[in-house]
Amino acid sequence: ANKGLVCLQDYEQYAHQNLDKNALDYYRSGAGDEYSLELNRTSFKSYRIRPCCLVDVSSVDVSTQVLGTCVSLPVGISPTAMQRMAHPDGECATARVSDKYPTTATSKVMCNKDWGVFAAAGDAGTVFILSTLSTSSVEEVSAAAPHTTKWFQLYIYKDRELTEKLVKRVEDAGYQALVLTVDAPVFGIRRSDVRNKFKLPPHLTLANFKGLHATDVTESKGGSGINEYVLSLFDPALSWEDINWLKSITKLPIILKGILTAQDAVRGVDAGAAAILVSNHGARQIDSTPASIEVLPEVVKAVGGRVEVYLDGGVRQGTDIFKALALGAKMVFVGRPALWGLTHSGQQGVKNILDILKWELETTFSLTGCNSVQNIRPCMVVHKSFYHKL
Amino acid sequence: ANKGLVCLQDYEQYAHQNLDKNALDYYRSGAGDEYSLELNRTSFKSYRIRPCCLVDVSSVDVSTQVLGTCVSLPVGISPTAMQRMAHPDGECATARVSDKYPTTATSKVMCNKDWGVFAAAGDAGTVFILSTLSTSSVEEVSAAAPHTTKWFQLYIYKDRELTEKLVKRVEDAGYQALVLTVDAPVFGIRRSDVRNKFKLPPHLTLANFKGLHATDVTESKGGSGINEYVLSLFDPALSWEDINWLKSITKLPIILKGILTAQDAVRGVDAGAAAILVSNHGARQIDSTPASIEVLPEVVKAVGGRVEVYLDGGVRQGTDIFKALALGAKMVFVGRPALWGLTHSGQQGVKNILDILKWELETTFSLTGCNSVQNIRPCMVVHKSFYHKL
Amino acid sequence: ANKGLVCLQDYEQYAHQNLDKNALDYYRSGAGDEYSLELNRTSFKSYRIRPCCLVDVSSVDVSTQVLGTCVSLPVGISPTAMQRMAHPDGECATARVSDKYPTTATSKVMCNKDWGVFAAAGDAGTVFILSTLSTSSVEEVSAAAPHTTKWFQLYIYKDRELTEKLVKRVEDAGYQALVLTVDAPVFGIRRSDVRNKFKLPPHLTLANFKGLHATDVTESKGGSGINEYVLSLFDPALSWEDINWLKSITKLPIILKGILTAQDAVRGVDAGAAAILVSNHGARQIDSTPASIEVLPEVVKAVGGRVEVYLDGGVRQGTDIFKALALGAKMVFVGRPALWGLTHSGQQGVKNILDILKWELETTFSLTGCNSVQNIRPCMVVHKSFYHKL
Amino acid sequence: ANKGLVCLQDYEQYAHQNLDKNALDYYRSGAGDEYSLELNRTSFKSYRIRPCCLVDVSSVDVSTQVLGTCVSLPVGISPTAMQRMAHPDGECATARVSDKYPTTATSKVMCNKDWGVFAAAGDAGTVFILSTLSTSSVEEVSAAAPHTTKWFQLYIYKDRELTEKLVKRVEDAGYQALVLTVDAPVFGIRRSDVRNKFKLPPHLTLANFKGLHATDVTESKGGSGINEYVLSLFDPALSWEDINWLKSITKLPIILKGILTAQDAVRGVDAGAAAILVSNHGARQIDSTPASIEVLPEVVKAVGGRVEVYLDGGVRQGTDIFKALALGAKMVFVGRPALWGLTHSGQQGVKNILDILKWELETTFSLTGCNSVQNIRPCMVVHKSFYHKL
Ligand SMILES: Cc1cc2nc3c(=O)[nH]c(=O)nc-3n(C[C@H](O)[C@H](O)[C@H](O)COP(=O)(O)O)c2cc1C
Ligand SMILES: Cc1cc2nc3c(=O)[nH]c(=O)nc-3n(C[C@H](O)[C@H](O)[C@H](O)COP(=O)(O)O)c2cc1C
Ligand SMILES: Cc1cc2nc3c(=O)[nH]c(=O)nc-3n(C[C@H](O)[C@H](O)[C@H](O)COP(=O)(O)O)c2cc1C
Ligand SMILES: Cc1cc2nc3c(=O)[nH]c(=O)nc-3n(C[C@H](O)[C@H](O)[C@H](O)COP(=O)(O)O)c2cc1C
Repeated sequence: ANKGLVCLQDYEQYAHQNLDKNALDYYRSGAGDEYSLELNRTSFKSYRIRPCCLVDVSSVDVSTQVLGTCVSLPVGISPTAMQRMAHPDGECATARVSDKYPTTATSKVMCNKDWGVFAAAGDAGTVFILSTLSTSSVEEVSAAAPHTTKWFQLYIYKDRELTEKLVKRVEDAGYQALVLTVDAPVFGIRRSDVRNKFKLPPHLTLANFKGLHATDVTESKGGSGINEYVLSLFDPALSWEDINWLKSITKLPIILKGILTAQDAVRGVDAGAAAILVSNHGARQIDSTPASIEVLPEVVKAVGGRVEVYLDGGVRQGTDIFKALALGAKMVFVGRPALWGLTHSGQQGVKNILDILKWELETTFSLTGCNSVQNIRPCMVVHKSFYHKL
Repeated sequence: ANKGLVCLQDYEQYAHQNLDKNALDYYRSGAGDEYSLELNRTSFKSYRIRPCCLVDVSSVDVSTQVLGTCVSLPVGISPTAMQRMAHPDGECATARVSDKYPTTATSKVMCNKDWGVFAAAGDAGTVFILSTLSTSSVEEVSAAAPHTTKWFQLYIYKDRELTEKLVKRVEDAGYQALVLTVDAPVFGIRRSDVRNKFKLPPHLTLANFKGLHATDVTESKGGSGINEYVLSLFDPALSWEDINWLKSITKLPIILKGILTAQDAVRGVDAGAAAILVSNHGARQIDSTPASIEVLPEVVKAVGGRVEVYLDGGVRQGTDIFKALALGAKMVFVGRPALWGLTHSGQQGVKNILDILKWELETTFSLTGCNSVQNIRPCMVVHKSFYHKL
Repeated sequence: ANKGLVCLQDYEQYAHQNLDKNALDYYRSGAGDEYSLELNRTSFKSYRIRPCCLVDVSSVDVSTQVLGTCVSLPVGISPTAMQRMAHPDGECATARVSDKYPTTATSKVMCNKDWGVFAAAGDAGTVFILSTLSTSSVEEVSAAAPHTTKWFQLYIYKDRELTEKLVKRVEDAGYQALVLTVDAPVFGIRRSDVRNKFKLPPHLTLANFKGLHATDVTESKGGSGINEYVLSLFDPALSWEDINWLKSITKLPIILKGILTAQDAVRGVDAGAAAILVSNHGARQIDSTPASIEVLPEVVKAVGGRVEVYLDGGVRQGTDIFKALALGAKMVFVGRPALWGLTHSGQQGVKNILDILKWELETTFSLTGCNSVQNIRPCMVVHKSFYHKL
Repeated sequence: ANKGLVCLQDYEQYAHQNLDKNALDYYRSGAGDEYSLELNRTSFKSYRIRPCCLVDVSSVDVSTQVLGTCVSLPVGISPTAMQRMAHPDGECATARVSDKYPTTATSKVMCNKDWGVFAAAGDAGTVFILSTLSTSSVEEVSAAAPHTTKWFQLYIYKDRELTEKLVKRVEDAGYQALVLTVDAPVFGIRRSDVRNKFKLPPHLTLANFKGLHATDVTESKGGSGINEYVLSLFDPALSWEDINWLKSITKLPIILKGILTAQDAVRGVDAGAAAILVSNHGARQIDSTPASIEVLPEVVKAVGGRVEVYLDGGVRQGTDIFKALALGAKMVFVGRPALWGLTHSGQQGVKNILDILKWELETTFSLTGCNSVQNIRPCMVVHKSFYHKL
């Protein structure tokens, strides 16, 4: 299944060769000139790892806790819309992987001979975030992956009743947190989607909205169908006051996704956010936002430990995860990589993606002298400018 | 008309494939090694946008005021010579677009389905600057676009009587400001024009000079015809004292175009300039001048709010405009992009260019939490070095 | 023999065209995205040499002393595993070159007409480090190159008895130091080795382990055979305490190889290390470690002259050696270049490599006004940022 | 003659297509990896020009004085060996151009129609430096260009008598200064010359040495013939004391060529040098020396106006000259560009090169508001880092 595919870039290449143009462009693209898209990747290269040697790493444990829940590895799945374009099982398959993901990892597990299968019998799993714009409904996913730690990514609609009903269904279906996306009052301009007049293939629907607007994205009125959908339905008037409204209709912890400045992070914490997810939305909203890894230190500093801070955007290998953790993230998330795995072989493909990241992260832990996330010290990752003065 | 052309680069590509070499090279080229030409573009990438989230952006208004006049968007048309090489309607078409351009924009307008036509019924329009070296005369343009806010870009000739007559015609034709170009005592060396022995096609004339020198540019004496023209007719002795002379012959406000240092900006304001247009003349004069966006902050600081500061050079997308505004520009202008639009489809093409910029800028406003130009704060744009220290 | 091959890159190219994929990838590759692999090379370019002129350089002597032993040039051979994949003579050939290498060098020697043969009659030689994972045994190498200054690179096995016996054999065979590799509790992920399921060709063995595990690397259980070997046999529990254990079983001086921070360097010296070898293992362990040359200054400063500091990683020409010496290294080592020479023509090829480096270094000495290593002053090499402020 | 060739790069391209490999590689190459060769060019790009506007530039004069002698433009010809490989007239042609070069330049001259011939009637000319290793003798060149300001570049031979005789011939032939090259006790390793076993074509000789060693360079003993020559004959023992010796045998002013640090510059001035020529020998000696333009500011500062400072290395266009002048050079020199002109069309080709540089420099003067070299102020050129902080 995974023969010859040994890193996430291999899966990326596979997906780029096998997805149809409409879906591929939607998954791949970033806003505008795609400068921030590139930056999300290249910025990671600006940080150098300073390993500690001669530490007993006979046992290495990459598990951690997020919002009080154990996860097998500090990598979760970011919400990405419309996963059934990649594979018929869509969000259900992705959610199932997170369910099964193993808690404990030892260096034995890192043995290459095992790496294709080392996650066969896990327990704690990791976090799966379902998008509002999913092609599998809240309930379907819940049924498919009952034991997975599931969070729900929420877009707030002008129609607040509809939104409230959605939140209730999310609670009922056993999701454990709401991830409120705060960077999308409208959608960014992704040029290839405009060129393609992107639409959801007719056999798919926005599954959370059966009956109402569920098939709106299957047509384009001239531009990107998804942008037109967002423009007509999402609430562009969303403001800090609405956090109170949201808290009034749910008891679920609220994570703010899309924060890019210290100021907004502090405001979010003050407003009662349970966690901050530093993200530039996979560089799909405003081109020339900083890379998320560039922003992480200032947010971590501003938040000062009051809540957990997460990051997504450009995470592609174990060292990226390590860098984010050293710079203060409690957890990272991946968006596109899960889509590549899904495209390759559904649930197994997504599992391969997490396997590779876990293998790479465990190797990084071993080679930096970290037995567990607690051992990672801030001084272990520095910006390259650290070395550019004699 | 604009199928598949969704950003300014698409129009650039179209123009590069459809213009003849003589005109294309003239429009495209920069001075010397064209390093500053590249810099005008790449420098914008060095600035990062720091968006604010959770701001009510249900209504977004990108209009502003320049010299007390309302404009629908903070993007005007820079003076570029000889526009009829791009399209038979030349400057008249470009001026007409500026006339019709709509004032108010709301997020409704941003809907993709509309974007090809959303400017159908505007009112305030934007600023059009006519070049001294235009292929349509001051009067023709005025007749073609009577309601447009028109400024006239002035080159001062050794023959001051001729210059004075020209200024009077400009006033009579209803132009509202003079844009004195201060960076062109001679013209920069644009190598392809020298190679091509650039000349104006014989069916066109420098329309403001019927009878006198109007056809001088239709021949080359061995090098670039336009440079030869400038060398023989423009006044290389022009100095700060001449601002007084110009003020003595006109009541129109005088904008200085081509300022690249704080010192000259201050001197210009002291000399009575109504505004400063930071510009390196599209990198066509001295290669290795700084990019205009690099220079903007020091000029804004030096001017200290005494007059408005504008910028042109390398503006190609909504985020570029946003960056210039955050760094203190009241307005930006585009030169080559209008020529690309003109080449594509005359008036409609130029309109498409402005439509795209407006759409991109409105999107940027929405995604940064800015309802209007007043909401843009300096801290929202930083140089990338901001992120390069831990 | 060396016609047309005038620099190390020429030998690299030859090797890349003549090795089979399994061996080539093993020799060439670095960890992960191979960013640090590239960095090991490009970082050298960030340092500029400031030469002194008008110094009498009629005699130039590049010899030095390491751990009290004279060497003809400040370049030794880093331990690289399994050299017989490159040439049937493997480690024996490489060791013999180091033996014969001439001590004295004068500018006469630099004469081009001689450069192919100028090392014909040497005496002091240089240092050869034999890898634990060699395809020639400790004893074979010793017999082949009895007069060479030989050090033994040690990996500590879970099986400490086996390790102890190995150390005794090393002592008995006349090796003069132990080079303890501290950056390899597990092996880094080198993607092409995983793809190739790297294994040692069946006619070769890990010669130091006849009978026990000697042929383990000739098979792959699904991934890189060498990584699987390391994972099952090396002691991942190795810690600073084990330095004491090692000192208790041997009187040989212990050099720590793989130090990348000031902290670990100090700790190593405190623990009794005889020298520190700054190295990122040829960028084969963790991708995005700093280049070794970037790290050198901080280690030199921290060690403060208490022990000698060496460097390997990316040394490819005389100026690289000069830079490392000026930044405080007593000696540098090369890994891959010796493999390229070996691939080209066995012992003669390795000799060519050292000849070229010596020739280049002597030229650099002459042109910087240094007659000997004592004349190299720290101010003669600066980071390029030195020049980037006016 | 110069059709289509409008900048120095055009002549470079012509030469690269028309020279035979032996000569081309010799002319083109730099030391080692040729990193400094590239740096000599790219470093100029790191400096930005800050023009002043609205200055009366109706008359622009680029002439200056060096060592008390008037020159028409602040660009002379660096000594390059063996120019007859490029054209039968060799050094004589190059020297003749410098002779005829016109003093006064006005903006009228810049008119494109004239630029191919504007140097037809000059007077003051510029400085030509003849290499010791020329293929035309001191006397031949003097006879060919009696009115040119000629300097002689001196290499000091082990055979001091020979050297002394050469200096006397130089004085007798009317040369006005000695340019002592201080960066070449041996020659740098230029790989293609080693590969080509570079030699002077048999019909040419080192013309200053008729009878003695004149034909040594027409053979190779295995490597670069010129390096072998230098190694056997030049005095590697040359030191600061020898400046006194040189002063004892000549009354000509002595210019030190090849200084790259403030320290050596001061030492040179203290030793009685009449001027300092900042140069890295066209990046042909040590790879990874700084670019000459990088070094210029520190040398200018250290010299503090006690003597004139010149620069060569990478000067290719008018803005490069302007930058060097603003950073404190009194004059710049070009090496390879003269060889390209010579290759193209002998004397006329070299003249074209100087014409282009003069035209570009006059344009730069006009566009920066400088009427003469006295008007260039240090603040008009800044390192790009000037703009990288907000
Ligand atoms: C195809 C795609 C769809 C996405 N859909 C959503 C979404 O519905 N809601 C949301 O908050 N973020 C969405 N995102 C952003 C992701 O949650 C995440 O921030 C981003 O993908 C992380 O960057 P990465 O793809 O480089 O890992 C989407 C991203 C992609 C690539
Ligand atoms: C083809 C062309 C012609 C121009 N003609 C004039 C002119 O006549 N007068 C003037 O002041 N500037 C002229 N400019 C400069 C523009 O006004 C403006 O500064 C520049 O084009 C802005 O850069 P941009 O093209 O990157 O937007 C010209 C520029 C171009 C590209
Ligand atoms: C093929 C190969 C095998 C290596 N084997 C070992 C080894 O067995 N033990 C060790 O300590 N280092 C080993 N290294 C690392 C080298 O000792 C050295 O640190 C590195 O090669 C230096 O970088 P360079 O190849 O750029 O000169 C190996 C490196 C390579 C390329
Ligand atoms: C082909 C060639 C031959 C040279 N010969 C000499 C020489 O004989 N003496 C000397 O002092 N410098 C010599 N130089 C160096 C030049 O004087 C000068 O420093 C260098 O060419 C300037 O750089 P540029 O070629 O980039 O202009 C030579 C350079 C070249 C390219």
